[in-house]
Amino acid sequence: MKKIPLYFFVIIVCTAFASAIAFAQDQLPSWNDGPAKQAIIDFVKATTDTGSPKFVPPEARIAAFDQDGTTWVEKPMYTQVMYCLERVPALAKAKPELKNVEPFKTVLSGDRAAMARFTMPDLEMILAATLTGMPVEQFNAEVKEWLAKAKDPRWKRPYTELVYQPMLEVMKYLRDNGYKTYIVTGGGQDFVRVYSEQVYGIPPEQVVGTVGATRFGYDKSGKPFLTKVPKLLLNDDKAGKPEGIHLVIGRRPVAAFGNSIGDKEMLEYTQAGDGVRLIVLVHHDDAEREYAYGPKSKVGNFPDALMAEAKKNGWIVISMKNDWKRIFAFDK
Amino acid sequence: MKKIPLYFFVIIVCTAFASAIAFAQDQLPSWNDGPAKQAIIDFVKATTDTGSPKFVPPEARIAAFDQDGTTWVEKPMYTQVMYCLERVPALAKAKPELKNVEPFKTVLSGDRAAMARFTMPDLEMILAATLTGMPVEQFNAEVKEWLAKAKDPRWKRPYTELVYQPMLEVMKYLRDNGYKTYIVTGGGQDFVRVYSEQVYGIPPEQVVGTVGATRFGYDKSGKPFLTKVPKLLLNDDKAGKPEGIHLVIGRRPVAAFGNSIGDKEMLEYTQAGDGVRLIVLVHHDDAEREYAYGPKSKVGNFPDALMAEAKKNGWIVISMKNDWKRIFAFDK
Repeated sequence: MKKIPLYFFVIIVCTAFASAIAFAQDQLPSWNDGPAKQAIIDFVKATTDTGSPKFVPPEARIAAFDQDGTTWVEKPMYTQVMYCLERVPALAKAKPELKNVEPFKTVLSGDRAAMARFTMPDLEMILAATLTGMPVEQFNAEVKEWLAKAKDPRWKRPYTELVYQPMLEVMKYLRDNGYKTYIVTGGGQDFVRVYSEQVYGIPPEQVVGTVGATRFGYDKSGKPFLTKVPKLLLNDDKAGKPEGIHLVIGRRPVAAFGNSIGDKEMLEYTQAGDGVRLIVLVHHDDAEREYAYGPKSKVGNFPDALMAEAKKNGWIVISMKNDWKRIFAFDK
Repeated sequence: MKKIPLYFFVIIVCTAFASAIAFAQDQLPSWNDGPAKQAIIDFVKATTDTGSPKFVPPEARIAAFDQDGTTWVEKPMYTQVMYCLERVPALAKAKPELKNVEPFKTVLSGDRAAMARFTMPDLEMILAATLTGMPVEQFNAEVKEWLAKAKDPRWKRPYTELVYQPMLEVMKYLRDNGYKTYIVTGGGQDFVRVYSEQVYGIPPEQVVGTVGATRFGYDKSGKPFLTKVPKLLLNDDKAGKPEGIHLVIGRRPVAAFGNSIGDKEMLEYTQAGDGVRLIVLVHHDDAEREYAYGPKSKVGNFPDALMAEAKKNGWIVISMKNDWKRIFAFDK
């Protein structure tokens, strides 16, 4: 028999000791006790207990989180759309010819009602102009600078503070149990990567999003760099979400969190794998502390049909009003 | 002052103890002592020593490895091309109409000389027919089945045994020092992902390669699945390598390993980042133990100009003949 070295046992004992201390605490303190919290805890316990028939080996522990409306506020407008609109003045300064061209002229006028009537091609022009055409590093710096100054119109706080504290706790709880957490967003992959580590503790390589192409080239001094170009490689929404997961991750998640019809295919695809799964929908039913736009409100992207599918398939539906003790870290 | 718990110190002591044992061993035993081995060790020591001006924080420790010719044999043909050719009989069985259509007819004839004259459109037809048109899971199963049976014509061994043992040691050495190792290959991302964990200890999500699109859909029973479709999203070769790195990883590696002109842009892009870098080229100069097709041989994809660039930029050039004690794990 091969002799097992002493230090091996010492490490085991230390790890067990540290784990015991960690597990004595409630890892989801911003959650009210209830079926949603319990389902998450049951899932984590079952998939990490080597004696459980539902055990999931560490390398397969992949959890996918939609972003807008699932991990942070998406109203009154997606944060990235706010970014694009608020970048237009700086853009018009650099390219004055845009000042008299629609849709830029309307954005510069500040007429919110007119902006609300923008068509999809209008928005695409604004997105292309503000998200592409520059080196990757310059884009990252511009987003970073904006995030440091921009404020949400309702809470008058930086957007990066409008993340849902209960979801941050779930992410950390999953990571503490060997899960790799991914953002899988319809938002721009490069945009979210700028702040994902700081805001979610998720490194850039674990962000899957809508992907525009880059083009390799050299500057005048011969230094190589990448330019963001207006060519869509993947629209990471609806059917694009499982496609994006395959593109970047290459395996099926065992847990997925969403909040809208844009997440339906990701949730279905996650559930279709073998073994136990955790499928979660965030229901925005708290107009007082955040917003209410679920099925009953008849606005937003959470139609009755999605709620029906959730019930039929046994998905966990989080009531923000009832399941969350607090919404934001700054809530009392 | 906040009291630091006892278990914290116990963990520190254990970790230090285990590390001391690990570092007493030579982690690159298949390497001869020389400048290449020394450069790799110096790089790892400098970037992981918190007191070093060249220290790289753990989250930025990304190392990229080309595959064909860098981590395994690429002659007489890329393994994936062998796969595609050897899949044609099974394909023709399922679709008999292909039997009389070129280039499939030639492949089925077994005429190697005629196959060697295939044009790029011929090869593209074969690749599209064998790599796309099926569900992702079916493709994975087909590749797995082939890898278990197929043999390299020279060594009569499975292709997965024709990996360079010294490079496996470098990968492990880097990982033991907090590096995330990635394959960045011109080969198919989905193809390499099938065996990357088993062969390299690299999980599927750390494989960047040439990417074809997938299409989400439902089978007759309503179960969602992804089909591989013949639409190229990224050709992960030459300028496509840094573009692919940005797409999947989202940050610049600090170490990169290649062996041909197809890796030039990846090596340049890696070197152009701030701080210390490790840039390595494998030079195939060992006709006896493997193959010789470097600059002097005037064949292959390692022209004089690349060697000149390596010298000018201080890249490490590995001589397989002189730097590697053995090439394969099965070598004496």
